[in-house]
Amino acid sequence: MAVELELTEELRKLYADVDAKHMAPLWNVTAQLLPREPASKAIPWLWRRDDYWPLCQRAGELVPIERGGERRVLAFINPGLEGKYATTHTIWAAVQYLQPGEIAPAHRHTPNAIRFIIEGSRAFTTVNGDKCFMERGDLVLTPAWTWHDHGHEGSEPMIWMDGLDLPLVGDLEGVFFEPFKGDRQPPLGINASERRHGLGQLRPAISAAPEAYPGLLNYKWSQTATRLQTLGDEDATPYDDIALEYVNPHTGGPVLPTLACWIQRIRPGIHTRARRQVASKVYHVFEGEGWSVINGRRFNWKQGDFFCVPTWSWHEHANTSSHDAVLFSVQDTPVFQAFGLYREEALQSGDGRQITAR
Amino acid sequence: MAVELELTEELRKLYADVDAKHMAPLWNVTAQLLPREPASKAIPWLWRRDDYWPLCQRAGELVPIERGGERRVLAFINPGLEGKYATTHTIWAAVQYLQPGEIAPAHRHTPNAIRFIIEGSRAFTTVNGDKCFMERGDLVLTPAWTWHDHGHEGSEPMIWMDGLDLPLVGDLEGVFFEPFKGDRQPPLGINASERRHGLGQLRPAISAAPEAYPGLLNYKWSQTATRLQTLGDEDATPYDDIALEYVNPHTGGPVLPTLACWIQRIRPGIHTRARRQVASKVYHVFEGEGWSVINGRRFNWKQGDFFCVPTWSWHEHANTSSHDAVLFSVQDTPVFQAFGLYREEALQSGDGRQITAR
Amino acid sequence: MAVELELTEELRKLYADVDAKHMAPLWNVTAQLLPREPASKAIPWLWRRDDYWPLCQRAGELVPIERGGERRVLAFINPGLEGKYATTHTIWAAVQYLQPGEIAPAHRHTPNAIRFIIEGSRAFTTVNGDKCFMERGDLVLTPAWTWHDHGHEGSEPMIWMDGLDLPLVGDLEGVFFEPFKGDRQPPLGINASERRHGLGQLRPAISAAPEAYPGLLNYKWSQTATRLQTLGDEDATPYDDIALEYVNPHTGGPVLPTLACWIQRIRPGIHTRARRQVASKVYHVFEGEGWSVINGRRFNWKQGDFFCVPTWSWHEHANTSSHDAVLFSVQDTPVFQAFGLYREEALQSGDGRQITAR
Amino acid sequence: MAVELELTEELRKLYADVDAKHMAPLWNVTAQLLPREPASKAIPWLWRRDDYWPLCQRAGELVPIERGGERRVLAFINPGLEGKYATTHTIWAAVQYLQPGEIAPAHRHTPNAIRFIIEGSRAFTTVNGDKCFMERGDLVLTPAWTWHDHGHEGSEPMIWMDGLDLPLVGDLEGVFFEPFKGDRQPPLGINASERRHGLGQLRPAISAAPEAYPGLLNYKWSQTATRLQTLGDEDATPYDDIALEYVNPHTGGPVLPTLACWIQRIRPGIHTRARRQVASKVYHVFEGEGWSVINGRRFNWKQGDFFCVPTWSWHEHANTSSHDAVLFSVQDTPVFQAFGLYREEALQSGDGRQITAR
Repeated sequence: MAVELELTEELRKLYADVDAKHMAPLWNVTAQLLPREPASKAIPWLWRRDDYWPLCQRAGELVPIERGGERRVLAFINPGLEGKYATTHTIWAAVQYLQPGEIAPAHRHTPNAIRFIIEGSRAFTTVNGDKCFMERGDLVLTPAWTWHDHGHEGSEPMIWMDGLDLPLVGDLEGVFFEPFKGDRQPPLGINASERRHGLGQLRPAISAAPEAYPGLLNYKWSQTATRLQTLGDEDATPYDDIALEYVNPHTGGPVLPTLACWIQRIRPGIHTRARRQVASKVYHVFEGEGWSVINGRRFNWKQGDFFCVPTWSWHEHANTSSHDAVLFSVQDTPVFQAFGLYREEALQSGDGRQITAR
Repeated sequence: MAVELELTEELRKLYADVDAKHMAPLWNVTAQLLPREPASKAIPWLWRRDDYWPLCQRAGELVPIERGGERRVLAFINPGLEGKYATTHTIWAAVQYLQPGEIAPAHRHTPNAIRFIIEGSRAFTTVNGDKCFMERGDLVLTPAWTWHDHGHEGSEPMIWMDGLDLPLVGDLEGVFFEPFKGDRQPPLGINASERRHGLGQLRPAISAAPEAYPGLLNYKWSQTATRLQTLGDEDATPYDDIALEYVNPHTGGPVLPTLACWIQRIRPGIHTRARRQVASKVYHVFEGEGWSVINGRRFNWKQGDFFCVPTWSWHEHANTSSHDAVLFSVQDTPVFQAFGLYREEALQSGDGRQITAR
Repeated sequence: MAVELELTEELRKLYADVDAKHMAPLWNVTAQLLPREPASKAIPWLWRRDDYWPLCQRAGELVPIERGGERRVLAFINPGLEGKYATTHTIWAAVQYLQPGEIAPAHRHTPNAIRFIIEGSRAFTTVNGDKCFMERGDLVLTPAWTWHDHGHEGSEPMIWMDGLDLPLVGDLEGVFFEPFKGDRQPPLGINASERRHGLGQLRPAISAAPEAYPGLLNYKWSQTATRLQTLGDEDATPYDDIALEYVNPHTGGPVLPTLACWIQRIRPGIHTRARRQVASKVYHVFEGEGWSVINGRRFNWKQGDFFCVPTWSWHEHANTSSHDAVLFSVQDTPVFQAFGLYREEALQSGDGRQITAR
Repeated sequence: MAVELELTEELRKLYADVDAKHMAPLWNVTAQLLPREPASKAIPWLWRRDDYWPLCQRAGELVPIERGGERRVLAFINPGLEGKYATTHTIWAAVQYLQPGEIAPAHRHTPNAIRFIIEGSRAFTTVNGDKCFMERGDLVLTPAWTWHDHGHEGSEPMIWMDGLDLPLVGDLEGVFFEPFKGDRQPPLGINASERRHGLGQLRPAISAAPEAYPGLLNYKWSQTATRLQTLGDEDATPYDDIALEYVNPHTGGPVLPTLACWIQRIRPGIHTRARRQVASKVYHVFEGEGWSVINGRRFNWKQGDFFCVPTWSWHEHANTSSHDAVLFSVQDTPVFQAFGLYREEALQSGDGRQITAR
């Protein structure tokens, strides 16, 4: 209906009166509001290490870290999301650059955050008093409303990925923010979370009352790497090859209520099967090189690059090199699972829907 | 930092280069992205029955219900949400107008919907084959992805409130929609949900395999009204007076994964205490008259009116008449509870934060 | 092995030495400890109203209700459970007899209890201060560790069924008991639970902090009866005909953590299909007459009778009269479901396993 | 009441008639059935390595392992539980002895089992096709109804602790047992569970459909030992010193629905505070020596010994040596938590309730 409805004078008058009362007829926007399937405003995109790295260094020279700005962070902005400050519709991904001796002042906020360490060592994040030292490959959590500051006791600049649900919590109008009194939290422990919860299948009796230490905060690369290598051919999956989800070992659920994190190893020569999901993802290329086809567009990637997969977008990955490729990703899957909105669809081989530029 | 950062040529150049690579510096937008507390773009607003009722009637004369437009619905558009087609940031509230013999064709979609019947009888919603007849005061659910169509076997036009999580699911880019083959579903049962699940504390053995009938779909007004009157002075709460939440008796949770529904009776002379919550609400005045103060602005209301409370807005209600006032509301509370984002704050008497226009 | 193991002198000596050290060889008792399937020590049994009713009356004349004995209760003792004070291996079923003006003193204990009212009116159970008046057909809960006393403001003796998980909690060595200071609790409310929670799909806002009132305590017969009649032919199940489970509307789970309660209407002429379950049950014949076959043994029953179905026993029911039969039952199903031990098996027609005495 | 009730002829006659109808008066057994608090029939007891070890060896010489007897197992029988074949009221603890080349034939049963390896290496348990090699200190699970057989590819006899919920499932009349066709399962994998789930905080994508591999089956000592040493003084608890619970990292819950497992390190000189719980435990002394006081009775223990703590028994541990003591324990805590029956009470220092024989 409506689409072909003749716009009589009476109808035009009705529309004007409806509008004047701050109302709107559904029938003129049904197709817009209720499309057959999602078409994300976000577009597939890739950001190169060769681009962001020098920009970080220049920022390091020009921009001090101060209360108010809080962090020296360069965010990846999806070209399709005009001015939304977002990498996908729900995820903020960024690189943060910290130089020896610098302090990113303590604060807390309702958006959840993860860090995935790209380069360097001896920087730390103090989370509710627990000073967690970070090394390349570590995944560090700062769950919603935990105090956190960053510092650096090493000798070389350090760079890591930030992943936040900031666009989501922003859209939900749920952002609260509070600066800490003082730049740094007094440490209550050093790597206490790691010491206590560093093996998920063993829970310390002391953590029955875990006010100060909210479970496992640092998923160490040394452990992750071992695990990734332990899995072999028989553990591979068609869409992600050899893949592990980081989980909260106290619940079996995702690491954060809104964000899941994955690490996957794509073996040399493997080309995964295409799939699309009601979920968006941001990938960081931790090791190796290869390419992904996302909604028919091919992106070549190598170590240090980032790329995003908007929701309900076909995507497949290939490692054409002779070494393993390792991809870290942050995903908003838990958001959709919480409300029963999650779906996935696999590409049937030969059905031609995923047309690539190869 | 940043705020007072002098915009040197080098820095200007850096910003331009960052922008060219589809990146953005956090420090220039920290205060914007991480405010101390939410300030909803939506504003408190009231829509009058005296306004929408004649508009519905005129639409009834001018606009047929057809496939494509799907429904004769006039939505309440929040003046603060420029063009977002939303009543609050997450909720779509609207009135739907159906005349005897008309058919609103069957379809399904991932947004969840509730109907609350304002006037009339003998219209029905068929949900996954169960033909649910609706009367004034009934709350009828069409959970995500259930087939539903409306028809009308009565003699007078019927009007009801629609409440959907459409803006939320839209922001989440999770909308799927599918028209049914044919305008009406063949009925598998008549009021079967009501017959089977009409007393929440008794679950039929037959519903152990409830493919066709997804639990309780129609919360009948006759039962609700009795319950509302059974509660007395000792059951009153400071913020909502005598209030009941409609729940899913198979889980104890909200009626839909994203939406909670409430009915409350405000006794004559009662003026509730002000509170604000990380949650938005749309109220329908089912009976009586009174006023609410929302973020310092007073709205007088009477039977048939609608008004909204944006998230984190102070609100309080008063019934100044000599009869009960009954308010129905739909709320997005479950969204925030799912992610640990829910908060509430009560106004301390005399602390002067809620300044009213009385 | 072992079964045919020759009992040499050496082996005899080993067994003696093992025994002396308070140890035991598994291999001699494997078949005893690990049978192919359960064979309950409890046996199917029926207790007649014509028997227990006069016994109750005589007890009413001879036995006062006093602190220490606490209740005038006659329990149904399964003949197979030599001296265990149990109706099935986990369930204690009994009749309690209270005369006008009598008081069964207040106490609390960790075993959970239900009452199902057989005859009379105006007696009450006060549960954590809420004075719940009871009428024929009402199901009244006293969850673990809630204070409860009984009194009687009517004019005729009152009799009800008690159902407790006492044998289970006894076997688990988890019984705690505490007498109240004084015989009666001071009432905090009258039928408050019923008033607040009497429609499961509506939860009062006041019950968000429900210290004194633990949810729905009285499932009124007037409501249950209506619901039972509302269900019709299309709602019947093969094993229980038209059946409803009483549920906790705040969780969707059983009324008590260890006990489920059911009410079922067997239509005239219906003979249900046989089934066995890892669960035991005690039935009370609330209305009508018929018979059940339990593990090949037929029991004719009529109004007021009780009978039990031990675990993993085939059972089927028949109503050969021209009126509805109504059976109430208490079941230990939740115990087995909690640990993944629940199973059921349906009799294939004609497979001859259930041989009846018809 | 009742206790002092005069046994008149009429009352005697009533009791006889009640008994003849397979009923029983509560009032005569109220104190017996509803004691103020639990007094376990089980008694604290200790079994010495020096006793069981030679008995195992003699059984190894005299008793072959055959279908029917199934396992060469010597169980610890609590002297207080006359003939119940149980270590506590719910737990069966035992030692199993397997020689190189022997096979304990494949079967499955509804009781859950754990193994904790005391001595030896290169024996294996195949669980649903996954061949799990076992070494000293490993904890290996065979959850309810999983196929399992044991074999031994090493050169020395191997001995391990068996812990089952057999007395519980027996009391619940829920035991099912089925022998496998053939003595050994064909292996589907080798240490697959360990490879896939050996780091609880990383879940392989492949395990989303884990029919053949039910999660983590082998908690390797090498990992546990590291973790136990990583915890330090600030991680100690008053009742268990430095303690870890083995958990199911996919749920955060206990390793089995009915059984929890703990490992604890008691530092030299530490004497823990006394506590009692509604839960029973069986301890194995993995390393070191010391003593425990259980309900006022002192038990000296050293490596290889076993001792039990009946439910609601005061217990405290002391390490008087100059080396760490390590205790493994299996506990029935989950049973009581499932039904809300769990309680604990700590001894107030100086209140004299725990009177020891020191």
